[in-house]
Amino acid sequence: MTSLMDVAQRAGVSRQTVSNVLNAPDRVASPTRERVEAAIAELGYRPNRSAQNLRSRRSHLLGLDLKPTGPEEVSPVLDRFVHALSEEAARVGYHVLVFPRADDAAVTHLPLHATRTVDGFVLVDTEAHDRRVEVLAKNDVPFVTFGRSGGGVAHDAVDVDGHVGGRLAATEALSRGARRPAFVTWPKGSLAGDARLAGFLEVCAEAGIPGEDITVLRRLHRVEDGVEAALTLLRGDPTIDAIVASCDLLAVGVLRAVRSLALRAGHDVRVIGFDDSPIAAHLDPPLTTVGQPVREVAQRVISTFLARLDDPEAPVRVELLEPHLVVRLT
Amino acid sequence: MTSLMDVAQRAGVSRQTVSNVLNAPDRVASPTRERVEAAIAELGYRPNRSAQNLRSRRSHLLGLDLKPTGPEEVSPVLDRFVHALSEEAARVGYHVLVFPRADDAAVTHLPLHATRTVDGFVLVDTEAHDRRVEVLAKNDVPFVTFGRSGGGVAHDAVDVDGHVGGRLAATEALSRGARRPAFVTWPKGSLAGDARLAGFLEVCAEAGIPGEDITVLRRLHRVEDGVEAALTLLRGDPTIDAIVASCDLLAVGVLRAVRSLALRAGHDVRVIGFDDSPIAAHLDPPLTTVGQPVREVAQRVISTFLARLDDPEAPVRVELLEPHLVVRLT
Repeated sequence: MTSLMDVAQRAGVSRQTVSNVLNAPDRVASPTRERVEAAIAELGYRPNRSAQNLRSRRSHLLGLDLKPTGPEEVSPVLDRFVHALSEEAARVGYHVLVFPRADDAAVTHLPLHATRTVDGFVLVDTEAHDRRVEVLAKNDVPFVTFGRSGGGVAHDAVDVDGHVGGRLAATEALSRGARRPAFVTWPKGSLAGDARLAGFLEVCAEAGIPGEDITVLRRLHRVEDGVEAALTLLRGDPTIDAIVASCDLLAVGVLRAVRSLALRAGHDVRVIGFDDSPIAAHLDPPLTTVGQPVREVAQRVISTFLARLDDPEAPVRVELLEPHLVVRLT
Repeated sequence: MTSLMDVAQRAGVSRQTVSNVLNAPDRVASPTRERVEAAIAELGYRPNRSAQNLRSRRSHLLGLDLKPTGPEEVSPVLDRFVHALSEEAARVGYHVLVFPRADDAAVTHLPLHATRTVDGFVLVDTEAHDRRVEVLAKNDVPFVTFGRSGGGVAHDAVDVDGHVGGRLAATEALSRGARRPAFVTWPKGSLAGDARLAGFLEVCAEAGIPGEDITVLRRLHRVEDGVEAALTLLRGDPTIDAIVASCDLLAVGVLRAVRSLALRAGHDVRVIGFDDSPIAAHLDPPLTTVGQPVREVAQRVISTFLARLDDPEAPVRVELLEPHLVVRLT
């Protein structure tokens, strides 16, 4: 490998001059700079990134922790987010370092930052009172969350407006003639689920549907839970004509239950999911769902992160992006 | 931040001694070593990873390029592989750096290695005569592929045996009574597709089914292609009683076509996919498919990569892992 010294010798200058050409070219007179640049080109010299990082005190790496997933688990939105984030990071000279999540961010996240392996983190799947948020904030580690965390710690976040999404889903169901809509969501305490539900209920109220006519069931986010919830709803009240689910996996279960009762999704019962995961388009019939602008989220996460690195004292920035309705056949 | 010098002063030793304790503790007498270790603990000193990398000439990062994907595209096996690879890498002190794939590996991959940002690469989605393989091999950059590339360049690879997978699928179809099986796969030149087909045809031949009774259609790997292929097959020859598809997305299309003809998958027509992507379990009816041992692939990729770093001159290693049949309802 060509070294800084090789370049200095070829150009007949000191190592410091070569370093200045690389890091502070304004300080070097033009003829000298051109001679050094020619030597760099002739020798094919590439500065070692570790040496550059030592000088700049930045690694240009962004840490992203991934939850371990079993073979049958899916996190389609997050998988798309990983792709989008790596592309948006590359535009600004950053790369994404992925690592497995552990229970304690003090064990996994802090050492990666303390050793300057990464300049900070993007957190996904945030929960209310997320431990990672508390640990990183306390240790002044730069980070941005995709999704809000809702704890006592104010922090930079990019989120998709679940309330607007809930409104979109309800408006779609009612505009197709539904008058007895129901909602299946997660246990209380999920910020995303509760925002989606609130938007949904708001539109129903605006349409004059009494709150007591609307059944809300809370389940986990597995397909089986969707099946069971939909069977409970449709057997308990055959007039229910629309079921909105807080995620596509629950909606997959709802579709299965609808079919098992010999009803037709999109005709007898409107079914609307959330997230526009890839599975939604491939179901039979394809699922109507509320989509998230994943690429725009990635763009905003990167720009927010860079702004935070540049100014650790800047006010906290929370950006809310708009979801969109993807109308298919259900 | 605490520096090496701070530790040296606290322990009353030279910087070199502190460095030795960190990098070659055997060279330091026990009482001195303990004094330095105590100073490190008291001051909370953490060596800067860039400085360590400069010494070791290793970054402990492994590059993984991801193909840009549109919102409706899915690469479920690869998404699971990213998770598994990050977990297996972490076990041996490595992290995975993801970056977007571009047309020319000389532009994207080589600079990452030349600057010692990564120690090498894992390549996925390899094609016959893969440009990345040629460029990396020519430049002596360490890499391992998930999947073989089949070009003229011998290189380390971990692959899942498609021939065995094709045998598993055919055996399953025939054991359930199928006598007129058909196969839908990709255009000629796909190593994976052709291996799967060859295994399938081998079992059919062993069972005494004449080759001319078996229709093989070649299509792209989109759902629409599966629909069209299955309609062509079943309308052209109503005696066809099993369709094996080279991937789950094609199988999703096959299932849709079967239903549209008022046939029942798993009864009138056996349908078997490939890859056990998450969607397979969530279809209605759930899809029988040939699964890939993704975690084991990730383990072998990491161990092969580390062996290659340790010995650039070692013989090329190609490992073939066994797929498994996941029997569901189709």
